Order: sequence, then C-alpha cells, then structure tokens
Amino acid sequence: MPFPQIPFNRVYLTGDEERNVIDAIRSRSHSGNRDYGSKCITLLEERFSFLSVFLTPSCTSAMEMGAILANLTPGDEVILPSYTFSSTVNAVVLRGARPVFCDVDPSTMNIDPNLIDQLVSPKTKMIIPIDYAGVPCDIDSIMEIANRRQLLVMQDAAQSLNSYHSDNRACGSVPHLAAFSFHETKNITCGEGGALVINDPNLIDRAHIVQEKGTDRSLVLKGLQNKYGWSDIGSSFLLSDILAAMLLAQLEKIEEITAKRRKITDAYNHLCEKYVVQGCIQTPCPPPGVVINHHAFWVIFDSEKNQTLFLKELRARDIHSYIGYVSLHSYEMGLKMGYKPEDVPITEDISKRIVRLPLYTDLAENGLQRCVQEIGNIFEGIYGF
Amino acid sequence: MPFPQIPFNRVYLTGDEERNVIDAIRSRSHSGNRDYGSKCITLLEERFSFLSVFLTPSCTSAMEMGAILANLTPGDEVILPSYTFSSTVNAVVLRGARPVFCDVDPSTMNIDPNLIDQLVSPKTKMIIPIDYAGVPCDIDSIMEIANRRQLLVMQDAAQSLNSYHSDNRACGSVPHLAAFSFHETKNITCGEGGALVINDPNLIDRAHIVQEKGTDRSLVLKGLQNKYGWSDIGSSFLLSDILAAMLLAQLEKIEEITAKRRKITDAYNHLCEKYVVQGCIQTPCPPPGVVINHHAFWVIFDSEKNQTLFLKELRARDIHSYIGYVSLHSYEMGLKMGYKPEDVPITEDISKRIVRLPLYTDLAENGLQRCVQEIGNIFEGIYGF
Repeated sequence: MPFPQIPFNRVYLTGDEERNVIDAIRSRSHSGNRDYGSKCITLLEERFSFLSVFLTPSCTSAMEMGAILANLTPGDEVILPSYTFSSTVNAVVLRGARPVFCDVDPSTMNIDPNLIDQLVSPKTKMIIPIDYAGVPCDIDSIMEIANRRQLLVMQDAAQSLNSYHSDNRACGSVPHLAAFSFHETKNITCGEGGALVINDPNLIDRAHIVQEKGTDRSLVLKGLQNKYGWSDIGSSFLLSDILAAMLLAQLEKIEEITAKRRKITDAYNHLCEKYVVQGCIQTPCPPPGVVINHHAFWVIFDSEKNQTLFLKELRARDIHSYIGYVSLHSYEMGLKMGYKPEDVPITEDISKRIVRLPLYTDLAENGLQRCVQEIGNIFEGIYGF
Repeated sequence: MPFPQIPFNRVYLTGDEERNVIDAIRSRSHSGNRDYGSKCITLLEERFSFLSVFLTPSCTSAMEMGAILANLTPGDEVILPSYTFSSTVNAVVLRGARPVFCDVDPSTMNIDPNLIDQLVSPKTKMIIPIDYAGVPCDIDSIMEIANRRQLLVMQDAAQSLNSYHSDNRACGSVPHLAAFSFHETKNITCGEGGALVINDPNLIDRAHIVQEKGTDRSLVLKGLQNKYGWSDIGSSFLLSDILAAMLLAQLEKIEEITAKRRKITDAYNHLCEKYVVQGCIQTPCPPPGVVINHHAFWVIFDSEKNQTLFLKELRARDIHSYIGYVSLHSYEMGLKMGYKPEDVPITEDISKRIVRLPLYTDLAENGLQRCVQEIGNIFEGIYGF
C-alpha cells in the first residue's frame, strides 16, 4: 500500500478568507492602500510595535523599496549572509551596489555578528541580516556595529513575523527597515505579498512617494496639493486590497496558527534530541530569551553522505523536504562576482549538510505522527540507534 | 436637490469574479504562475497573438522586467514621450539609463514618429511609445525606425488591451516587448496587476529567470535540474493566483465590456462634434484602420482659461474629471534632469488644456445622459452655442 504523501508545505486557511475577499471585491476599491490594507497596517503596527508599515506585492519588492530608501548607489557595499534567498541580494545589486558576504553562526544559520566588523569598509552603507527559518538574528550586536559605524540595517524578516528578540521585541521592530513575506510558503499568507516596516522616522515621507511610482500622489490624497507628478524614482509597491482582505483573515488568527506549529517543533525536537546529544545532527538553537514563530525546522547532518542518504530515504516514503538555500556565493552570479568558498567557509560546509523537514500549520493534525515515526526509522538506519 | 455624483471611474464587475476567486482560495495554491494564471496567459496569447505572456504584480513592474530584459545600463538612452505616467520613465531610470523625451502628435497624444529620428544617438537602446487613453501609437513607423537603427521597442500598452493597430493587429503584438495594466482604473482589472508581453523569442528564456527573483527555478519545475540558485538580477515579477482568478473573470467578458464603453465614446463624440468643427475643442482622432478599446475620452480646449472654467463648472455639478498627466519634463525629476519646456513644446502646451471625461463600463447604463447634458450646458456657456 502506498504511503500517503506528506508535502513540505501546505497552505492553511482560517475560514475567514472568503468572507473578507468577497467583501473586498464588492467594494469595487481593489487597488493598494484601501480599507483592508489599512486594517492590516494598523494590526501590524499595533501588535508588533512597528513605527510604520507599507504593504507591498512581495517581500522581494519590500526589500527593493527599502534599498531605494537607503539610497544605495553604485560603489556602495552592503554586508549580508551568503546563506539567504536571491531576493536579499538582488535588492542590493539592482541598485548597482556590491554585496559583501558574511559567514553564519551554525546554531542559528544567521549572520555571525562577530565577523561583520572586519567586512566594513568606507564604502559600506548597510547591513542586511536575515532571520533564517524564523529564528531571530542577533539584532542587538548588529545594531551596535551599525550605530558605531553609521550604517543602516534592513532586516530580511521574510520568515519571522511573530518571532521575538529578547525582551519581547518583535522581529522587525528594532532596525531602521525590515521586510516581511506573505508568500504561499509562509506562516501567514495571501499568495503573494509583503510588507516594509520603517522604524526610522526620517524615511517615512519619501516612502509614500517611492511606493506610489515615484509620484507625490499621497500629498493630493491628503489634500495638500491638487496635482501630482514625477518626484523621485519608485515603483508600484502596492498590495491589492483583495489580497489584503485575505491577509487580514490570516493575521487575525496568528496566535492560533503559531500554536498549531509549535506542536510540530516540539515533536521534531523530541525526536532529534538523542541524536543531537550524540553529535550525529544539529538542530536550531535559538538563543535564550528569543521566541520563535515555528516557521521551519532544520537538521544539519554530520556528513554530506548521511544527508544524501536521509533525503533518499525520505523520498522513498513520499515525505517532501527541502535542502534550503543554495548559497549565493556558490552559484552563477556569486561565482561571476568572484566569490570563493573560503570567503564563507561555514556556509560552504553546512549548506551541503542541511535539510528542512516538513512544517505546515495543519501537519500536527494530519500526518505528523507518521512523519516523526518515519524520520525516526531513517535516523535509526543511519546511526544504528 | 444635490446632483447625484458622477465619478471619473468606477470598477465594473462581471459577476464571475467571486466564484473564481473562491475557487482559487480553496486550491491552496495562491502564489504566481498557478492554474488561473495559466488560463489568463493562454487566453491573452491566443486572443491577441502575443508570443509569450508573463503576468506581473503591475504594469509598472512589467515595464521594469522589460527594462531588465532589454539590458538597459547606465549610459544608455531611451526615447519616450514626456506625456506619460511616471512608471514609463522610472523603468528606465531605475536601470541607470537616461530618458530622452519626444514630443507628441496632438491628434492622438502619442509619440510623434517624425520627431524620433533626430533624438536617436549612438547611446540610444530603446524606444518606449505609449498608447494614450487606449489609442494605438503609430507602431509601424516606430518599428521602421527601430529596425533601421537596431533599437528595441517596448510598448507601454497600460491602457490599450483590446485596441488594434491597422490590419487587426492587437496593441502589444507587434514590438519586441509590451506591458499591460490591470489596475483598478483600467477596462479589465484585478485591483493591482499587469502583464509583460514578449514577442522577441530571444528574450523568453531569460524572462523566466528574471521573473523568478533571478533564479533558475523554472528549470527545476521543468525537471531539467534538481536545485536552483542565484543566476541573474530579477525580482518577484509574479501575480498571485487569487488576482489571476479575478482577472480571468474579466478577460472572458472583454467584448461585453468594450461594447458597453463604446456607447460612451459615441455619446461624447456626438456631443463634441459641433465644437470640434468650429475649432473650440479637439477630441481623439484615431488614425484610419485602428480600433480602440474606449478606455478614455479627452477634450483639448482652445485655451487654458476655458479648460479651467470647464473644470470649475464640472466640479459644481459633482462630475469628476481628470486633467491627465502632469508631463514628466515639467515636474520635479524632469526639471532636476535639466529638461526645458522648449524640448517638447506641444506637450508643454496641450497638457495644460486637456481634460479627460468620466468613462467607465457602467456609465452608459447609469449617469451618461445627465453627464452629456451637463457637459453640453457647460460648453454652451463657454462658447455661446
């Protein structure tokens, strides 16, 4: 009898999406920054203590909007991990700036702040840490360097909505800029969507212009002018209110969603514990005081051989996993820019041994037991206990 | 008794949007390039003879995707009208290239091909004509210049879906690249959305990479590779399938929508005829053989004074109109770049005398009679007959 498939990800629906989206359609006001968008913005600002939120078509575009606001220009350098998605680096390269890759801390797979200082040059303008798998980066150490060196920080928080740094500070609430994703693969989704958080008050006025295709239309909407025109570079960094309506339905259930996912992290941690203790594998080690949103769970194997074997056995059981990022320095564009494995040795090493396990909101209710049992069997087969 | 308001635009719903969108939500596959997206792409390619269509979050982003595919780089020049929206020019400026503004033909308000040749320099890489108000640009003359000078053409067809050049060739089907808008203000809308049409087969492979955040993920989806990474610059040029579901409902009724709008153009033409004959106003004069989609209707007054008077009288009757574009050369960014009124004298002159009248799909059934009568009264008041 064939195994029932366990996908890597499955979209969760709260049940309120259809009601909201129908309401948005009937409103006949479907473009960006309308009623549902405003509600999402208020919810995000109030719940997470963000100074100002702009909904965007994607986290990718939020990052690009942030890069414009940071005034990145050719000649500038930006420090970021190689272990991230292409959107983190393209936001930099699209402005003509140069990415400088920093290695990661294997306990979190996030940028290692101890390695940043030596990469800062007179050309450095910004640091872009990411919160891998929803585990917060070490924002305090990063902000200390940024403040000392007068750099901007944009947190690529694509995966970390509802994760918290120590002292109950939401991911995205600390740096100058932060970007979130509401893509289909995220805890909270509207299909394609994102948000740019701006905590630096000096960047907000320009953001309204950049979001509106580089026009000062927002001044007309506020009644301060009677016509608008081409004032700046910019794009259509706007999320349709139809998607905002869907997003609101999900945001309002964020605690319920996080609680469902917590059970999965707990089960994976329980399963992995004895192999971690014996040094066979490593799993996420969020620092004390942080709270995670259970976006993802990874296993770093002791060897590439065992990772490959694990992937093969999982596939045989129709359980889908994900190998994580192909690090930026090691692929076509990174190689073309002249990056070498020795620039980021930890990334180079670990990115070949990591696997992300299935994790989606509904999994605990359907499939987790089999998933954990099968993974346990595979571990036993590999490590002999 | 107050007049019932007549807005400038009002979104039309075909009645099929909710069914499609609910189906898309329940599919749990909401990101870009899913089932509804594929259906929209097939419909657009087949109906309009486009070689290849990519759905994007907006026409703005479609233009930016096209600018990346055109390999625009700093030092390049691009010829475009000043009488257009900021998104046309920002697609150029975001790549570091320089816009060169060309004047327009007052009969269509589109780029005047007779003026293009003298603006071409060794640095020129592309021409971006627009189809103002849905009236097709003179694509044959533009393509003749482009072919002779080895330039790319990207048609900003934001407003001209279902308009046709002579010989039944759809707007967007002739040049190398074309961009369409499905913004709330357009004939066919999904709130925020767009499409890039690629008719040059040499640009298609790269487009799949650029659309997917600069990764070769499409090769994995086709089974040609088992991992993907950072291969190029790019962005998230993807339209959520929830919006594609809405879009399909509208695209399937495109003839019905166009027919409803045709009645409004006819009524406005009938109303304006005697004032046009007497030289008081000018109205759109599409060239023989073209077919328009009735996106918009404009009136160019004989003086700025009469335009201002007309606008004041319209407002007094709660009829909303639109002054059209504030031309690019005349606003903040254009001035900063050193453009002067004498560079585009026709644009400079006419952009101060033009008004766009209310035009939306439902208008003929509700409000058109009063609208035409009131505008007739205002014309009579201004011109005395």
